[in-house]
Amino acid sequence: MPATILDGRTLAAELRDEVAARGARLRGRGIAPRLVVTIVGEDAASVAYVRSIERAGAKVGVDVTVDALPADADEGSVRARLQALGGDDTVHGVILQQPLPAHLGIRRIAEAMPPHKDVDGANPVNLGRLAFASGTEFVPATPAAVLLLLERSRRRDLRGVRCCMVGRSNVVGLPVSLLLMARDATVTVTHKETVDLARHTRDAEVLIVATGVPGLIRAEMVAPGATVIDVGTTFVDGALVGDVAYDEVAAVAGEITPVPGGVGPVTNVALLRNVVLAAERIHAVPSP
Amino acid sequence: MPATILDGRTLAAELRDEVAARGARLRGRGIAPRLVVTIVGEDAASVAYVRSIERAGAKVGVDVTVDALPADADEGSVRARLQALGGDDTVHGVILQQPLPAHLGIRRIAEAMPPHKDVDGANPVNLGRLAFASGTEFVPATPAAVLLLLERSRRRDLRGVRCCMVGRSNVVGLPVSLLLMARDATVTVTHKETVDLARHTRDAEVLIVATGVPGLIRAEMVAPGATVIDVGTTFVDGALVGDVAYDEVAAVAGEITPVPGGVGPVTNVALLRNVVLAAERIHAVPSP
Repeated sequence: MPATILDGRTLAAELRDEVAARGARLRGRGIAPRLVVTIVGEDAASVAYVRSIERAGAKVGVDVTVDALPADADEGSVRARLQALGGDDTVHGVILQQPLPAHLGIRRIAEAMPPHKDVDGANPVNLGRLAFASGTEFVPATPAAVLLLLERSRRRDLRGVRCCMVGRSNVVGLPVSLLLMARDATVTVTHKETVDLARHTRDAEVLIVATGVPGLIRAEMVAPGATVIDVGTTFVDGALVGDVAYDEVAAVAGEITPVPGGVGPVTNVALLRNVVLAAERIHAVPSP
Repeated sequence: MPATILDGRTLAAELRDEVAARGARLRGRGIAPRLVVTIVGEDAASVAYVRSIERAGAKVGVDVTVDALPADADEGSVRARLQALGGDDTVHGVILQQPLPAHLGIRRIAEAMPPHKDVDGANPVNLGRLAFASGTEFVPATPAAVLLLLERSRRRDLRGVRCCMVGRSNVVGLPVSLLLMARDATVTVTHKETVDLARHTRDAEVLIVATGVPGLIRAEMVAPGATVIDVGTTFVDGALVGDVAYDEVAAVAGEITPVPGGVGPVTNVALLRNVVLAAERIHAVPSP
């Protein structure tokens, strides 16, 4: 029996309706939710990403503005810019496009991100709060998308469920692992230094993969009936490819997200939902 | 062959010599390293703990002062007190004794802890930095002690090593797990909702236990030759007992920490070492 597809586009459409309703409610009170994307230097991939966010924002009533700093901006000026955005009442969400130019260190800059507008979780204080499971300002967009998809899966109750996270990045693997632990899952975090990766992936009831290695996960590495979430997106010969060898794994797994059409579409809406949430908080409008 | 004992008292004595030398160097420059322990209300266990820290501090040249707030202190006054300590140049380390009285929430209070004096990692920003593996101000004392003991073990190189953490508390399980990941271990985090705990513990090359359940880990739950670190300390019939059934597990494990005499003695010195480190930073004295 082939795996059930966990369809990100359908889920994204539902979330978009919710976010658009909240955006309209804010606009009815004279508040235009606004996301500022700070970019240091020019970068074709960044520009394309921002365009896609702008289009998605237009559908749900979130304005998206690019704040471009020169490629040779120094640490102090990037920090000052982020702090200024923190104090600007017309701005509700701020993201800092990465990667930064090589001369800039992310750490000290990230700590200047205003936490109450940090809709994609750049400031470590937000990962700290997330780690403490004591409520974070915002769950970053990609980890939020993973959890939203799991909530629609057979594994919506994660208590005691064996989860294997492949990848431990600050933007996906680590926060997803922490969120799974907070939901009482038993979590194994694997990565490129793991010896015998299959030993761990095969033991998982829920397998989440975020490595950027196309086709890393093969059928024999997956337990029959497992729920598989593929966060990877790499362009290979012009096509978007996940970290999971989809066709063969779909023959073994119980549920699986496709690439494209899985985590990606949900991520974009999750980001905009955080912007609307930030605007509601800043203007003291109760969230639904 | 019985397990090798990972002797915390010997390691603590070595660390104490190092910390005392650094303390003496600071005093030679007219700087008296000082730790302030903020306590809200009276509590016999807290008072005993502070006395033990005072004695340990006296041996290495760290002054320990108790800052007692009334039991009915409100959130604002505790926060204000922590902030004031942050601005006091004669204070280098601050810890907030827990548990707090029931009317106080730890989260908002912890965020008022000055990060540069947060020697036991109460402020989530420090756990966030630790999670980011990008350098934290201080590794909290108990997780630091676990890592110091592992550095003296056969498993000093943790790359690719299968580690199982039993317990996911904010003070031990979570930060230890993050530190192990940062050292390239493959980490499984288990806890009271884990189904079939032995399945995970038996698979571990390094097993770290911090649950407060005396004798939870039995011989049949441990892989032959594994390195076992027992963080648990519970008084049972007047004796200090760990989370590991010591006698039977010592017959199976390759290395094991005793209770008492394992993690505990190293923890106290690790805390004082953080105070000295904070004083070195605040007064711009290079650390050795």
